This record gives sequence, structure tokens and C-alpha cells, in this order.
Amino acid sequence: MYTLSSALQQKIDNKTKPLGALGTLEKLALQIGCVQNTLTPQLSKPTILVFAGDHGIAMEGVSAYPSEVTAQMVLNFLQGGAAINVFCQQHDIALEIIDAGVNYDFPPQSQLINAKIAKGTHNYLFEAAMTAAELNLCFEKADAIVETVFQRGCNLIGFGEMGIGNTSSASLIMSQLCEIPLAKCVGRGTGLNDEQLQHKLAQLTQAQNHYSNLTDAKTILATFGGFEMAQLCGAMLAAYQKNMLLMIDGFIASAVFLVAQHLEPRIQANAIFCHLSEEQGHQLLLDYLNAKPLLQLGMRLGEGTGCAVAYPIINSAVTFLNQMASFDSAGVSKC
Amino acid sequence: MYTLSSALQQKIDNKTKPLGALGTLEKLALQIGCVQNTLTPQLSKPTILVFAGDHGIAMEGVSAYPSEVTAQMVLNFLQGGAAINVFCQQHDIALEIIDAGVNYDFPPQSQLINAKIAKGTHNYLFEAAMTAAELNLCFEKADAIVETVFQRGCNLIGFGEMGIGNTSSASLIMSQLCEIPLAKCVGRGTGLNDEQLQHKLAQLTQAQNHYSNLTDAKTILATFGGFEMAQLCGAMLAAYQKNMLLMIDGFIASAVFLVAQHLEPRIQANAIFCHLSEEQGHQLLLDYLNAKPLLQLGMRLGEGTGCAVAYPIINSAVTFLNQMASFDSAGVSKC
Repeated sequence: MYTLSSALQQKIDNKTKPLGALGTLEKLALQIGCVQNTLTPQLSKPTILVFAGDHGIAMEGVSAYPSEVTAQMVLNFLQGGAAINVFCQQHDIALEIIDAGVNYDFPPQSQLINAKIAKGTHNYLFEAAMTAAELNLCFEKADAIVETVFQRGCNLIGFGEMGIGNTSSASLIMSQLCEIPLAKCVGRGTGLNDEQLQHKLAQLTQAQNHYSNLTDAKTILATFGGFEMAQLCGAMLAAYQKNMLLMIDGFIASAVFLVAQHLEPRIQANAIFCHLSEEQGHQLLLDYLNAKPLLQLGMRLGEGTGCAVAYPIINSAVTFLNQMASFDSAGVSKC
Repeated sequence: MYTLSSALQQKIDNKTKPLGALGTLEKLALQIGCVQNTLTPQLSKPTILVFAGDHGIAMEGVSAYPSEVTAQMVLNFLQGGAAINVFCQQHDIALEIIDAGVNYDFPPQSQLINAKIAKGTHNYLFEAAMTAAELNLCFEKADAIVETVFQRGCNLIGFGEMGIGNTSSASLIMSQLCEIPLAKCVGRGTGLNDEQLQHKLAQLTQAQNHYSNLTDAKTILATFGGFEMAQLCGAMLAAYQKNMLLMIDGFIASAVFLVAQHLEPRIQANAIFCHLSEEQGHQLLLDYLNAKPLLQLGMRLGEGTGCAVAYPIINSAVTFLNQMASFDSAGVSKC
């Protein structure tokens, strides 16, 4: 029986190399060919979306950095000085910065997409981070953003985020949906010391106890998430609906992906996990998702940096599939 | 006390990211800055050299492929159809193919560097693969090749190889120099089955028993190596003498590096280990060298493919160091 998958595998096996000798690149080529339903897949106008938002929980001292840094980093993105700018420029990846809910009034400017829901979420120690209506609005705005990028011809989209306090949200979402104890999901984020880490865990345990009966993925996202995470989730789902390839970054993007996967299990077929973060919960989360990241470079920065740094590897997979000679065409003996 | 190393670390730490958040990229940036003795290192005209040669041992059935494949793959390199061509083109890496000792009469052509010592080595089951004079000639020819590349302005050089039978050489060199039992150094190469692997191990054990008293690194290389490996070794040493950065590929290149490191221990400061091969001995060899590879993509192809695929990561390290904003310049709060 002819299937595209077996035809792709045959094409890969006929390239001038020992069977399987390109390892992960071969698996990637197969995945990408299957998603695009072709023997000659292409990566077109790769784009990284960085959603930014502030978190009510940040006032509880769960991060090494003050909340103001979210807005400062957005300005840094707009000026081209952050790591994600540098890596996107290196690889000719389009970069879009989205204000999903930063606690700052940015002057109107063409490079910043204004999708602000509010100036930060509520503090979930006391009430849900956002309402169901706000969550739906996040999904709507994300839909429109992905639609614009799609119309430009992009078929590979990376998901980044910036939001002081958002490793806390990710830990709570992961713990709740995976049923893994919070202590295993909480990490040092941008650089907490031992004492600060204990404080973070204590605060988040208190938050979890308030809402321990939640099981619905959307409700969990609304309760603990940031606006940038809710829009990220909506964007992942929208990109999947358009059959785009999804580059998933580190711990926070993976926790958001977990929500998206609860809402649409088939999304994983389109997902490429780019980098294993140093943040302690990430390995466990990837294990839960049965996902193997492309890179393990010990980064823990967010912003979509793992996607940008992994992009050339993804491109290598497509490139060898399309450009390498076959045993027949090159006149090389098979074993 | 001012040192360049501490100044580089300070520059890295002042970039707009949490301390250490770029992980391995930060270590790479520090290494490259130290090698080039500057706060603003540059990668210039990256080049991969692929040395090819045939092995007398190949007639003993130690490889899944026949010896003819060495020459066929050289022709494939020259036609641009191999994996290394595709990845070098993707990243704008110059590629040079060297006939160090292939058992084939190539028609004269400008793209192939003729450094042929002989049409393959002797079978080390019966005599040393090459003479001391041939080894010295390999080093001389490699010197000249590196000099040419250096004169073009290259300061980053990757080392690839092609030679049916050369995992056998690498295993014997590793076992002898690391004093690790041969069974742990021998692997499936291009794809041996269990029975073939046992046969390979038996043949190599016999070879090792003939020469078990050897301890001198150059003599071990001459006894078990291929001409492509001897030239690779000479090229590594020559590149180090010119203070170039060295990209080390997989199992065979690492075994050759082991010899180079015995001859010049300081060479490791300039070496970047690019990829952990699937070949079973490689992890042990890297552990012995105390080396951490950038990538773990399950490849086992040689040709310098690990270098080519890792190159954009190395470039990312230099790029963030030179182009990212500092906390001061971007007006971002430090923690």
C-alpha cells in the first residue's frame, strides 16, 4: 500500500548515506513531509512571535527581576538589542513582538502589535488571573495575528514569550494538568537563589491549594496564565488549524503547548520541540509529552530563542531531503 | 587583575538576559574570545576539509560497504550531492575535498586536492598501515593545505573524513591511547548487524594483539590509521599552530584529535566538539577528553557533517557577544 509516509522514508533511505545516518534530521524530514503532505517540503517565511505580558503574581517576589523588566525588554526587542533579535537576524527569521498585556503605555509604533487585554493579570493568590471572556479575547486576537502571518506566506512559526513571573504560571499549569507535584515543576526561573526558590514554591503551593479541584485546561490557563501565555496558546491552535509547523521553545512555551494539546490532541503532529531548557520542570514536561527536543544547550531565556537557534537544524532536514543525491543518481553502491 | 577572560565574562554578563541564560552559547563565546584574544571575535571564511582514503583492513569485511564506496563518495562530493555539500551550501561554508589515499585514479580536476600518498593503506592485520615516512608526508601535505586555507582568511576550520573501514582505525587508536578495552571502542560503523560486529571485533582484536606494546601516539596512528586520518591529524596541528578554531566532528575525527592532543596538549583550547555520534565509542572518547559536544542529533555519517550542522550554533555565540545590547545601553534593570 502506497502511503506518503513510506514514500518519504524510501526517499530518505535512498540518499547517499548509510541507513539512518542522519539521525534526528531524518525523523524531522519525515515529520515535515507528512505535515505538508509532500515529498518536497519547503520552509517558507519562518516567523517568531513573541508575546509579552505582566503577571499579578510578580508582586509576590516569585522572580529575580522586577515587573518593570517586561516593558523594558519589549522596548529592547523593538530596538533590536535582545538575544531573539540577534538570532532572528542571523537566520533571516521574521520577528513580531506583541503586547498581550504589559503594564506600560507604549507609544504607538508600527513594529509593536497592540493586542493588549489589560495592564497585567490579576494576582492568582486572590483571584483568577483572567476571566473566561478575557481568555476568549486572547484567542481571538491571536487568531488574527496568525492569520496575518499566514497570509504573508509563512508556514513555520515559532512561539516566544516575555513576562516576569511566567515560570510560576507554567509550573502551576504543568502541575495541575500532568498531576505532578508542584515542587518538581517549580524552578529558579531567571535566577532565584535557594531561599527565593523556597519562597516561590510556598507562594505557588498556596495558589494551587485555592484551585486544586480544577481539571479543565482552559480554566487552568485562565486561572494561572498570563495574557501572553493565553495568546500564545491561541496562536498555537490557530497555526495548527492552518497546518503550519510549530516551533516550541522552552519551559513556558511547552506548558502552553500542553494546554493546546489538551484542547486539540492532534496538534503534536505539527510540533517541533526546539530546546531543552535548564528550568528544572522542562525535562519532566517533555517526558510527559513524549517529546524529544532538538537541542540541549543549557539555555533558559525564553523569547523564542530556542526556536531561533534550532531553526537552521530544521532547515537542514528539509535541505538534505530536497538536495542530496540518491544512490542511483550518484552511482554509489548500496550495502 | 585585568584578564581578557574576565573582561569577556563581564561583557557576557552585561548582556540583556539573566546571568548564564544563554548556557553553552556563553561558554562558546568565552572560549572563542579567549582563543582570538579579543572582546569582539569574528568567524571568518569557515572551511571544512574532507580527507578521503582507503584502508587495507577493508578487505576483511569490517564495514557494511565495499571499499569502492570511498571513491564513489569522493565523486559524489565533487558533484555536490552528498550531505556535507548540502549543509556547507546552506551555511556558506567553503568545502575542500582532499584525496589523501583513495584507491582510484581520479581525472585531474580543479575541485579535488590531490594529496594522494598511495592507493590505500596496508592491511594492519599483517603490517603497519603506513610507514613513518608516509606519516610524515601526510603531515607535510596537510600543512600546505591548511596554509592555503589560512591565506584565504579562514579562521575556523572543520575536519571531515571519508574512508570505508576507518571506524576500525578509530577504535584501535582509541583503545590503545585511552587504555579502554577494544570491545567498548568498536561499533557498527555504517551499519553492521550483530554477527558482522562480532566479526569486526574479532579481526580488530587480532590486529591489536600484534601491536599491543605500542604507546607512542604517532606510531599508533601510522600503524592503524588511514592516510585521510594522518592528514586530518596534521591539519589539526597546523590549524592550531595558526591559532585557528577547530571544529571536531564525530567518532573518527575525535580519535584523530586524541592523537593530535597527545602530540600537542594545548590544542584542546581551540577545539569545539560539534556532535555526539551514535557510534558506540564516541561518548566514552569524549568523556576521556572531558569534552562536551554541542549537538546530539543521533547522526553517524562523518564527512564533517556534524561540524556543518553545528556551525550556526557557533556563529550564534559570536553574534550574541557582538550584537546584543547591554543592560546599560538598553535601559533594562538588573536583578
